Amino acid sequence: MGTESNFQVRLAARPEGVPTRQNWEMSQTEIAWPSDGEVLVKTAFISIDPAMRGWLRDAKSYLPPVAIGEVMRASGVGTIIASKHPDLKEGDQVVGHVGVQSHALVQGAALRTVSEEVAPLSTFLGALGMPGMTAYFGVTDVGALEIGDTVLVSAAAGAVGSIAGQVARNRGAGRVVGIAGSDEKCRHVVESLGFDAAINYKTESVGKKIEDHCPAGIDVFFDNVGGDILDDALSCLRQGARVVLCGAISQYNNLGNVRGPKNYLSLLVNRARMQGFIVSDYSDQYGSAVGEMAGWLAEGRLRHRETTVQGLETFPETFQRLFSGEKIGKLLIRV
Amino acid sequence: MGTESNFQVRLAARPEGVPTRQNWEMSQTEIAWPSDGEVLVKTAFISIDPAMRGWLRDAKSYLPPVAIGEVMRASGVGTIIASKHPDLKEGDQVVGHVGVQSHALVQGAALRTVSEEVAPLSTFLGALGMPGMTAYFGVTDVGALEIGDTVLVSAAAGAVGSIAGQVARNRGAGRVVGIAGSDEKCRHVVESLGFDAAINYKTESVGKKIEDHCPAGIDVFFDNVGGDILDDALSCLRQGARVVLCGAISQYNNLGNVRGPKNYLSLLVNRARMQGFIVSDYSDQYGSAVGEMAGWLAEGRLRHRETTVQGLETFPETFQRLFSGEKIGKLLIRV
Repeated sequence: MGTESNFQVRLAARPEGVPTRQNWEMSQTEIAWPSDGEVLVKTAFISIDPAMRGWLRDAKSYLPPVAIGEVMRASGVGTIIASKHPDLKEGDQVVGHVGVQSHALVQGAALRTVSEEVAPLSTFLGALGMPGMTAYFGVTDVGALEIGDTVLVSAAAGAVGSIAGQVARNRGAGRVVGIAGSDEKCRHVVESLGFDAAINYKTESVGKKIEDHCPAGIDVFFDNVGGDILDDALSCLRQGARVVLCGAISQYNNLGNVRGPKNYLSLLVNRARMQGFIVSDYSDQYGSAVGEMAGWLAEGRLRHRETTVQGLETFPETFQRLFSGEKIGKLLIRV
Repeated sequence: MGTESNFQVRLAARPEGVPTRQNWEMSQTEIAWPSDGEVLVKTAFISIDPAMRGWLRDAKSYLPPVAIGEVMRASGVGTIIASKHPDLKEGDQVVGHVGVQSHALVQGAALRTVSEEVAPLSTFLGALGMPGMTAYFGVTDVGALEIGDTVLVSAAAGAVGSIAGQVARNRGAGRVVGIAGSDEKCRHVVESLGFDAAINYKTESVGKKIEDHCPAGIDVFFDNVGGDILDDALSCLRQGARVVLCGAISQYNNLGNVRGPKNYLSLLVNRARMQGFIVSDYSDQYGSAVGEMAGWLAEGRLRHRETTVQGLETFPETFQRLFSGEKIGKLLIRV
């Protein structure tokens, strides 16, 4: 390690709206050595997730907010370079909350070991990681997918949406339709990922197109977006539909003035439900889900794409790409 | 029957906002005799329900809209005075969709026989009728009530809300809190119906009071109201909460511009769900529910109150009382 130091990105000020460079502080510090139970991880990839925006809010949620001055919370994969945990050794590859930094001191018990023999490391932050698990349990459990269902997915070219549509198809959906924000993304969703159709919400009338592509109505709507798209989907629900509330990227930078879904009474007349979930509630079932998903990957029935940016110093601008939509699939920083 | 005629209230024009006398047309017509399978019912009580407002909208829903010139759809109880149905005879007392009229020609198969020996006739339009069934299945099935749950009910002095709170308590809720629109209603809810607390939404800060009365958060919110009250409740959900979407009386007269629940993302962070239902989906289970509810009535563990107005000619003004809140419990017209 010698002359290496730890490059860290810390929260400097709480953002209003989309976080900018002013909200972050970068520093080089000395690398600390693990105490008992800890390991030192050299990070290889940092995951850039919409959930991170929520962690910046000073509000009660499923995790405490990131404090001012604290290293930004983030998932990542990397290699253990020093261990004081009995079950982990130097050279092990692990995934977990390592934070936006080049070297992370982490409780060994909070990490999961992964293997490049199953898939490239970065896959454990995407299709086989939190986004993949979110898609899997969102579709199968919260969405209670049934054979033949019509499934609509928003942010369909995103890290979660792209997997959600494929999980639905592989599990027997009758029809899978995506909504995305560019013609390129729509082509990707249909041609590479095998969705039956895609709607470009920036150039097409979403409500009208949902009716065209889901003539029998929607059984499962997997929503990552909120706002107008949620309203358009609500107005096309089939009896007994399930709206999987996975995210609301259109609203995250304006949580003081969220656009409530004015068509929510469609839930009433259609005996439908809208349900939120937190993927970590399913952590005891990750093993079998990863097994099934890895099988699909090997068979070519689960495709995923990554947008990888080089260097932790790009974090402020890379994080903004979540909200501007300038990426396809899983957004990562290679350290 | 001789000189009697049939007094009917028909839809004259589709209302915008709260229906007024201009939307209705009253007439006297000759009483028709049943054809095969039909019975002639002399109505005793007509039920005035919020769902009737929905039936006036020219929109796809779980029942077709009432047509212009058609007798207004309504539930009622009455006595059969002529029968051409093999299982029903003169003198039988029945409940069903008889319409706002003094004499109704109805398919016998669409009626349910009731007995004054179980409860007074009007009870089959309230606690043992559609409102009671709505409360029962809303709490037990959609709300998935568990022992010890904290339950919040809006429109708690209304036909459905007043029963919902008592079903919750009788089925083991730890705490039942109601929201109503006057001090008189709040007193009724606490003192007569046995709720633990009540909030007057017209004079108190609902959000603040929910926090006071539900210190651990809400497990089941039984919503009849929508609007600001739904938002206040959403912001106080406990992990895994269930929002039972029973109605939205605050929004029914302005469906072109519904206030969507801006706090709906509380469903996400609290892994909660919001679910609509239509009580008739449970019709095959009404028998056992009525049995349980009738037992509670007999034991004094289920109390209900009625606001009864005399005469079908009062229908236009009586219907308005649903929206102005000038009534307690079940609103009925005595024919």
